Amino acid sequence: MSVPTRAYDNPIETMMNPASIAFVGASNNLTTMGTIQCLNLVTGGYTGEVLPVHPTEPEVLGLKAYPSVDALPKTPELAVLVVPTRLVLELVEAFGRIGTKRMVIVTAGFRETGDDGRSLEQTLVERARHYGIRFLGPNCLGIVNTSNRLNITVGPVQDFDGALGIASQSGTYVAQVVSYLHRNGVALSKAISVGNEADINIVDCIEYLGADERTKAIGLYIEGIKDVGRFLETASLVSRDKPIVAQYVGGSEAGARSCASHTGAMAGPAHLYEALFEQAGVIQVESIEDVYRIGSALATQPRLKGRRIAVLTNSGGPGTAIANTCDRLGLEVPEFSPGLKERIAELIPGHASAKNPIDLTFHMDMKVLSEEIPSILFESEEVDGVIIHGIMDTGFLDLLYPAVSRFMNETKEQLFEAMSIGLDRLVAMPSTHGKPLLISSFFGLEDHCVRTFHERRIPTFDAPEKAARAMGAFLRHLEIRNRPVDRQGRIGSPPEEATAIVKRAGGAGLDEYDAKALLRSYGIPTPVEVRVSTLAAAREAARSIGFPVALKACAPEIRHKTELGLVRLGIASEDELERAYRSMSERAGVPGFIVAEMLRGERELMAGVTRHPGFPPCVVLGLGGVFAEALEDISSRFAPLSATDAHGMMDGLRSSRLLGPFRGMKAVDRVALSNILVALGRLALHFPHIAEVDLNPIIVVDGSPIVADALVVLGEGDTEKGIENAR
Amino acid sequence: MSVPTRAYDNPIETMMNPASIAFVGASNNLTTMGTIQCLNLVTGGYTGEVLPVHPTEPEVLGLKAYPSVDALPKTPELAVLVVPTRLVLELVEAFGRIGTKRMVIVTAGFRETGDDGRSLEQTLVERARHYGIRFLGPNCLGIVNTSNRLNITVGPVQDFDGALGIASQSGTYVAQVVSYLHRNGVALSKAISVGNEADINIVDCIEYLGADERTKAIGLYIEGIKDVGRFLETASLVSRDKPIVAQYVGGSEAGARSCASHTGAMAGPAHLYEALFEQAGVIQVESIEDVYRIGSALATQPRLKGRRIAVLTNSGGPGTAIANTCDRLGLEVPEFSPGLKERIAELIPGHASAKNPIDLTFHMDMKVLSEEIPSILFESEEVDGVIIHGIMDTGFLDLLYPAVSRFMNETKEQLFEAMSIGLDRLVAMPSTHGKPLLISSFFGLEDHCVRTFHERRIPTFDAPEKAARAMGAFLRHLEIRNRPVDRQGRIGSPPEEATAIVKRAGGAGLDEYDAKALLRSYGIPTPVEVRVSTLAAAREAARSIGFPVALKACAPEIRHKTELGLVRLGIASEDELERAYRSMSERAGVPGFIVAEMLRGERELMAGVTRHPGFPPCVVLGLGGVFAEALEDISSRFAPLSATDAHGMMDGLRSSRLLGPFRGMKAVDRVALSNILVALGRLALHFPHIAEVDLNPIIVVDGSPIVADALVVLGEGDTEKGIENAR
Repeated sequence: MSVPTRAYDNPIETMMNPASIAFVGASNNLTTMGTIQCLNLVTGGYTGEVLPVHPTEPEVLGLKAYPSVDALPKTPELAVLVVPTRLVLELVEAFGRIGTKRMVIVTAGFRETGDDGRSLEQTLVERARHYGIRFLGPNCLGIVNTSNRLNITVGPVQDFDGALGIASQSGTYVAQVVSYLHRNGVALSKAISVGNEADINIVDCIEYLGADERTKAIGLYIEGIKDVGRFLETASLVSRDKPIVAQYVGGSEAGARSCASHTGAMAGPAHLYEALFEQAGVIQVESIEDVYRIGSALATQPRLKGRRIAVLTNSGGPGTAIANTCDRLGLEVPEFSPGLKERIAELIPGHASAKNPIDLTFHMDMKVLSEEIPSILFESEEVDGVIIHGIMDTGFLDLLYPAVSRFMNETKEQLFEAMSIGLDRLVAMPSTHGKPLLISSFFGLEDHCVRTFHERRIPTFDAPEKAARAMGAFLRHLEIRNRPVDRQGRIGSPPEEATAIVKRAGGAGLDEYDAKALLRSYGIPTPVEVRVSTLAAAREAARSIGFPVALKACAPEIRHKTELGLVRLGIASEDELERAYRSMSERAGVPGFIVAEMLRGERELMAGVTRHPGFPPCVVLGLGGVFAEALEDISSRFAPLSATDAHGMMDGLRSSRLLGPFRGMKAVDRVALSNILVALGRLALHFPHIAEVDLNPIIVVDGSPIVADALVVLGEGDTEKGIENAR
Repeated sequence: MSVPTRAYDNPIETMMNPASIAFVGASNNLTTMGTIQCLNLVTGGYTGEVLPVHPTEPEVLGLKAYPSVDALPKTPELAVLVVPTRLVLELVEAFGRIGTKRMVIVTAGFRETGDDGRSLEQTLVERARHYGIRFLGPNCLGIVNTSNRLNITVGPVQDFDGALGIASQSGTYVAQVVSYLHRNGVALSKAISVGNEADINIVDCIEYLGADERTKAIGLYIEGIKDVGRFLETASLVSRDKPIVAQYVGGSEAGARSCASHTGAMAGPAHLYEALFEQAGVIQVESIEDVYRIGSALATQPRLKGRRIAVLTNSGGPGTAIANTCDRLGLEVPEFSPGLKERIAELIPGHASAKNPIDLTFHMDMKVLSEEIPSILFESEEVDGVIIHGIMDTGFLDLLYPAVSRFMNETKEQLFEAMSIGLDRLVAMPSTHGKPLLISSFFGLEDHCVRTFHERRIPTFDAPEKAARAMGAFLRHLEIRNRPVDRQGRIGSPPEEATAIVKRAGGAGLDEYDAKALLRSYGIPTPVEVRVSTLAAAREAARSIGFPVALKACAPEIRHKTELGLVRLGIASEDELERAYRSMSERAGVPGFIVAEMLRGERELMAGVTRHPGFPPCVVLGLGGVFAEALEDISSRFAPLSATDAHGMMDGLRSSRLLGPFRGMKAVDRVALSNILVALGRLALHFPHIAEVDLNPIIVVDGSPIVADALVVLGEGDTEKGIENAR
């Protein structure tokens, strides 16, 4: 699987650019959903052919209608169904017979309604496949292409030729946000409501939008992903180039209940999605507002190339709030060099501040704020991005006019004309200098400046913090772009020894000794240890390892050794060893022991593999000891892992400082730890019937992580097949 | 100090309700700030007398103007100055002489400009005090009272008689958000720009707004608080009744730089403010948007009495997003009882969901969404609060009309008339049933429903997550109201023994033994330990304590015992004791030792006292060991602490699970730990010259926290005076 280089390799491409569309489910009754959708198609500027199908009406919305699919004068490239559920299958057959290859099935009543619906959906998929039909839905709200004005949603599009592509598992976020988007200056390139994803799914959308030239950033609303592996692969490739912003909901009980009831999406625990997005380079946001507005900012502005932000305002509060938010997000609002400060100071009044944030204070010549200082900032090599608050003209006048007019003769229009400021120079600066510009303004569409920013695609936020948070997403995308490209193409075959150990264990499972031997075969460091079954052998092992040693009972069925008193650490002498050996032997059913080197380290980590339905194996890293459990400070990635992923896991721990040089302790060897994590991912892919791996603790000895205890749990599955799949 | 029960005990009261106002700094030039402010005063509906003072103009904005203060026909109750800096002092004198007692000084050029300005401001304060004048500013943007239509800001107020009171350290957030507030349905009661706070400060505002009957919730924008102790006391009292929502900015380097340059506010580290707000019951928010919109929601809706939220939508995505956000914030979106589900199911189509969230799906009779189901929900005893998404009428029509009109004869107005829905029943439900209602809608003022919600003060948010986050603030306020009232009125005198120990230590400081003796005098548990200076005494001590024991060097000047090898733990025998004693004694300059009981526990905590300029002593609780430092998982409160504060600290730790019964360990004795924290606060107040206290580790022995090591650092200060102050 690889991302197509041209959009038309993707089934959505034809759907978005059909020469002809058959529409089934529109009439002349303007209160039905289908009719409104068809109305938007007919009146929205789409120049292809629209062919309504209606059993009785000779005309629909002014167009000739056809009584049946078979009566159509040609094979439409796309068919849209907004019909009762019971009619869907026969319509799919009918379009299949005449050779239509793309459909948008708006009709609901399938998987989301329960078992009957699920089985109906399965039949739908089979019939479509039979005819080579690729389709969106069922239970979706349609698609929008603002380049060719194709719109089959209920919402009449207001803004065209935008650069943000949207794919959503909720139709509302495609069809019913038109006025919201317009008010906020967000213009889309394409929008896709995926519905139940019976055929085309959200990963296809990412692939399509990733290749679409008009789309410069991608926004996603996600309640659950069906094909996580392909999502990871596709999104990882796309996000290196185009920013992807996603909201995930469904991680809560009530959220999942709601998901299930409306699209039947399979929602997983929130932390798995967090790890998934992190690994795939997807910028996770907390609200649909951020999907649109941060997405649109990323789509319309040049990329951020460094973290130094200039903040320019005409009032202190917003400047402080922007600086503060930038700081929290890892951006810098650095004090300017004396030279730069001097150039700025020349343009501003004495009591204003030329430091960064620059505060012109109230009541300045707008040109200084909207042109003169910005041009200095964009030109400066000290600045990577610019945020401005306070540019406005008619918005304020509009408010003030009722009062002002009592004392002036000018009409509102005359005043507006006189006060409107030119923004041509400013709006050209981002592309000229290759730096992003974000605007904050408390005014809305009543302000000519805000309208101009919207038209010229300069992202404009209605609160200072929002502009700063959007800039944070630019930084996030810079970090994603800068991640080393080292994704493993192949995970290779398992080491021969590993296969032998796993085969030998059979259904009985692995004891600690075998578990560690398995790890060693993957290059994962463990203590020196010897398996013994007599006291004499234990003595000899201890002598060769050197005291102090650990003595542990060792058998596949023993899982909680410490709690059972079957582990003795720090045995300093042969006498002590003997006492420990005898004491443990007295407990029934201990067939063998490990004598192991004692590890001395002050830091403990844990790592492991967990499996979750629908997800690739998940490699986990965390703190060891009781803290691991109490703090839930873990970091996850899905196999196969690259070294970049492994380093991302280390950086993703809240307690990542503990991995550095810390209180006189040496830094943890990050390469060694990375190797352990990458190897765990390979192991998990090689042996699908290994249900769980738990390395706890991993003791950090003089910087080196060494696995002191390991548990490998077998589940259902076939080793051979697992190895085969992994290749 | 206590909060006045009536607003007119506060100096702001007269300022907000003056019978007459002298305005100095307005002319007939409508492009100056002063003139615009006066214009808003004159045309805004204020019915008191406005007396412009202008040296040359006979009339200002149609009113008779007076050439000087002395020429005024009466003593104005309030004077407003928007004049050059150099004129301020003489005008204060002039108004002082004629008996004016309240002033708003808009003029800038004082403390915020540096040393000269600071000294000018000091003179200003002195002159005002001389005449008994209380004033706002300098460097502020004025005040608004929407009840009597008094507005001396540059922004012409659009919405009156609101319930949210605003006090802000940035003038912008009072004067330049008019259209923003209107667009978002936020109506204020009062708004105060505090400027440099040379006299009246933000705590006075909290006190005033807390007592103001029109104000039902308070919103604050804060860059730094001058009088933290009074803030804590005042806000704690007010917040039990009226919700206080605050944004703090200034905790970052760039933020602080910006603060200093525009109002000269003293910004402290962000975590101190976090602790302060937590302790004071102030709901901290991340953006000015939340100050207004969450503040306004809290001001206009009944209180939340439980955490069960009903979510009602006509589309799945918003419902899921609301449920998910509610869940993250500790609210519940519980599945309804069969009976309730049945009642709802009767009203909705078959494929829609009667579970919670209720999803009517697209295209329903609006009345079901806006009236029928809400009335069931408000009546139900299973529901504490309601969030609805999707109510709309003309907004959608407005969009669709251009297309629809091609096929219909009705005018837009006729259609609007026909489609407008009645919301009278819905908007009455919250007050009838005493439950909050929050609305989410993607439409703006073009929608008749949104306009109606604004007019009827039903909080309406432009994204589903925002409505849910606002409901989270209702829950937060419920928790604040429910906190036990146990604030200590007096911190009492220090124990006699404590005073004796501290006196005895003098300038030399306290060694570990004395430090622990001091703690014991406050009832803080420590291990059994004996101070010794001979081996024989050490032996006897060890025998009486019982092996194993710890041996520690003990002198005020020894601070890093462990690193210096001056601590030996787990000494098991007299021989071992002797070896350890001799080995430590060989190191030069160890005058004494402690022999101490060995504590056995698996969990370690740390607690202490830190001091920060401008703040009361800060009591800190955290994890012990290396984790304390790496995870920065600490929780703070300011002295004096109540038991509620102490319990809040425990709950505030990210790792608070470690305090519960955990992996077979007993729960930490919360009362005992609370006593330690409360005692630390008393100790810090009793002895101001104790600069720092560090109890690390506190070992949890069978649930009981015992201080294993303690450091008490003396700083500058006078013990006697400290004790005096504390009383």
